Amino acid sequence: MSKIMAVNSGSSTLKWKLYTVPEEKVVAQGMVDRLGLSDSVFEVQYGGKKISEMGDIPDHTTAVNMMLHKLIELKIIDNYHEIKGVGHRVVAGGSIFKDSALVTPRVVEQIKNLSEYAPLHNPGQAAGIDAFEKILPDIPQVAVFDTSFHQTMDPVNYLYSIPYEYFEKYGVRKFGAHGTSHRYVAKAAADFLQKPLADLKVISCHLGSGSSIDAIKDGKSVDTSMGFTPLAGITMSTRSGDIDPSLVAYLMQKMKITDPNEMVKILNTKSGLLGISGVSPDMRDLLATRKENHRSDLAIKIFVNRIIKYIGSYITLLGGDDVLIFTAGVGAGSAEIRKEIVDRFSYRGIKLDKEANEHGKGLRKISTDDSTTTVLVVPTDEELMIVRDVVRLTNLSE
Amino acid sequence: MSKIMAVNSGSSTLKWKLYTVPEEKVVAQGMVDRLGLSDSVFEVQYGGKKISEMGDIPDHTTAVNMMLHKLIELKIIDNYHEIKGVGHRVVAGGSIFKDSALVTPRVVEQIKNLSEYAPLHNPGQAAGIDAFEKILPDIPQVAVFDTSFHQTMDPVNYLYSIPYEYFEKYGVRKFGAHGTSHRYVAKAAADFLQKPLADLKVISCHLGSGSSIDAIKDGKSVDTSMGFTPLAGITMSTRSGDIDPSLVAYLMQKMKITDPNEMVKILNTKSGLLGISGVSPDMRDLLATRKENHRSDLAIKIFVNRIIKYIGSYITLLGGDDVLIFTAGVGAGSAEIRKEIVDRFSYRGIKLDKEANEHGKGLRKISTDDSTTTVLVVPTDEELMIVRDVVRLTNLSE
Repeated sequence: MSKIMAVNSGSSTLKWKLYTVPEEKVVAQGMVDRLGLSDSVFEVQYGGKKISEMGDIPDHTTAVNMMLHKLIELKIIDNYHEIKGVGHRVVAGGSIFKDSALVTPRVVEQIKNLSEYAPLHNPGQAAGIDAFEKILPDIPQVAVFDTSFHQTMDPVNYLYSIPYEYFEKYGVRKFGAHGTSHRYVAKAAADFLQKPLADLKVISCHLGSGSSIDAIKDGKSVDTSMGFTPLAGITMSTRSGDIDPSLVAYLMQKMKITDPNEMVKILNTKSGLLGISGVSPDMRDLLATRKENHRSDLAIKIFVNRIIKYIGSYITLLGGDDVLIFTAGVGAGSAEIRKEIVDRFSYRGIKLDKEANEHGKGLRKISTDDSTTTVLVVPTDEELMIVRDVVRLTNLSE
Repeated sequence: MSKIMAVNSGSSTLKWKLYTVPEEKVVAQGMVDRLGLSDSVFEVQYGGKKISEMGDIPDHTTAVNMMLHKLIELKIIDNYHEIKGVGHRVVAGGSIFKDSALVTPRVVEQIKNLSEYAPLHNPGQAAGIDAFEKILPDIPQVAVFDTSFHQTMDPVNYLYSIPYEYFEKYGVRKFGAHGTSHRYVAKAAADFLQKPLADLKVISCHLGSGSSIDAIKDGKSVDTSMGFTPLAGITMSTRSGDIDPSLVAYLMQKMKITDPNEMVKILNTKSGLLGISGVSPDMRDLLATRKENHRSDLAIKIFVNRIIKYIGSYITLLGGDDVLIFTAGVGAGSAEIRKEIVDRFSYRGIKLDKEANEHGKGLRKISTDDSTTTVLVVPTDEELMIVRDVVRLTNLSE
């Protein structure tokens, strides 16, 4: 049976899921945590069981070797060649990667060169690819970029209103993120509605700990709320989203911070829901405390406010909206948040189906039949999208 | 005949307009430029004539003295007491001034203390007030703040998604600007439509060299595109508007800039239409060159793009829009820009009246009768609004 593996590796983690194709079933999944540190954790889940081991795993190559041995030991695979391809999540693809790419030495080089755009992600992801190349040199690998879906954006949407030479010299532009998720849920929504994606104006709300909104038309990403980095856009768990850029300088002065990266780090890690509420970056905690804690409630309201404003701007940008999608932890998980968002669009005839919103499960319609826009919950599956890209780019389906 | 003067003073300029009330006619206006520098310029216009003098005018007090003497010399006034009040534009009113204020020593002190929020404006404006206080101590003065109209915003709209203590400790929040203009045109629009402003959902587009969009409901500013400073929001002549805040740090590093204020200065003075086009900060130049110059065209398209997205977000925030207003240099001046903006709202039934848009003059409706939203051009008049505030706060009308 053919199998494809989806990998998400970081500098000290390696998460993986093994799928059968064309069935698209997960046969095993696991992770290595604290890679390169002491007391590394090695976990595998399969057939309802879970194995967990501790030990020192010095590098990605060791981790991949351990994992593959374990798959054989557990008889999940008989030999390595059952794995027909490996797909890797890569955060930053810059302006180079307009689609997922079959891995070559040149591609790995380019991923490393793009580390400046994602210093916390690309190096670890390149290390993961290198490890698989070393151990499984004959098995094709595919890099799947968070940014590539947004490469269809027009310069009018991706350029900033700053000196044009910053774009030419430093590559400064909007790249967006969560592209694999937006791409997956948009396609799943079209399939669910039995309509060609190309015929639908779609606004996709990926609301997790990182959140972004995407405007999709003709099957392509037209604009997205994240920017040059994933800091921009709407309020997130710990990220500020859009703020007056002069505040970076103002706050540095006030707090006597000399390194601007330190200020940006505060905007990335101590802001958003956590910063406003002072309670938690987790929406569930805020929902649980909003009645007694004014600032939990405020954080939720600001979160909803930024989302509805982005959706409103994208309705205008697209010239209407056929489908509104909610996905990711908060988007697919919180009926309360969805209700607060969708209710703000009653002015244009969007109507929530209370029952489907609160008590439905999985991929489903949560708007009434007479709603002007179809509202869907679509659980995202970035790993499955990666697997499908491996199948597509390695011509496995032929 | 009662007269009121509206004054807009800066660190090296003093502009003024003298009105009769209740007629609201301008009887004279003028300016002093290069105040405190060599070769100061002193100008007065009245009854179709213009007087221009050169000389060294060392400070605001000298400038005000010269101006008042000239008004008597030219028989525009018989004596100083014909001037029943003087209104001053003040850029930053912080969270203190929720309305225009009768000037007292305490008010002047507060305006000076707010200089941190508008270092290029408040000190010069306070100097202008001080000069009039010295020369006309018996005549009431009123401070009219660019920010006070926006003080009705809810915390959900004015707070940033950053640590809450920055709001508590440093007063960091959205203040907005152009409040006097938005307030004036919204009222003028309601009068023109013979409806109470409180009954209308209004989106006001002040498009000049600085530009902002304002969402107005129940006669109050609900949200506005400018932020803690006038840098935020849409693309402006030389200002970037919203960008990914992490770009401040990224560009500082790339360009080896150590002072964040230097970076913010670039975002304020070398960005926007000028930065994108490399041609001019002036929309007229861009419109004239867009056919042969790709980047002029790009700058215009980005300008329109950011505006339609803000309008879209405010339609959602307000839950609809009854009136869309265009004002200021570009907003009231360019039929081409208005058309490009309004055409993007055809999806919701907004229809431009081509004839009225292109060939009409002054305050007018430029949408068709069957347009779902009424679109108006309303020439702004911040000085007249200042004069009306002087009348209101000095009870001159009683």
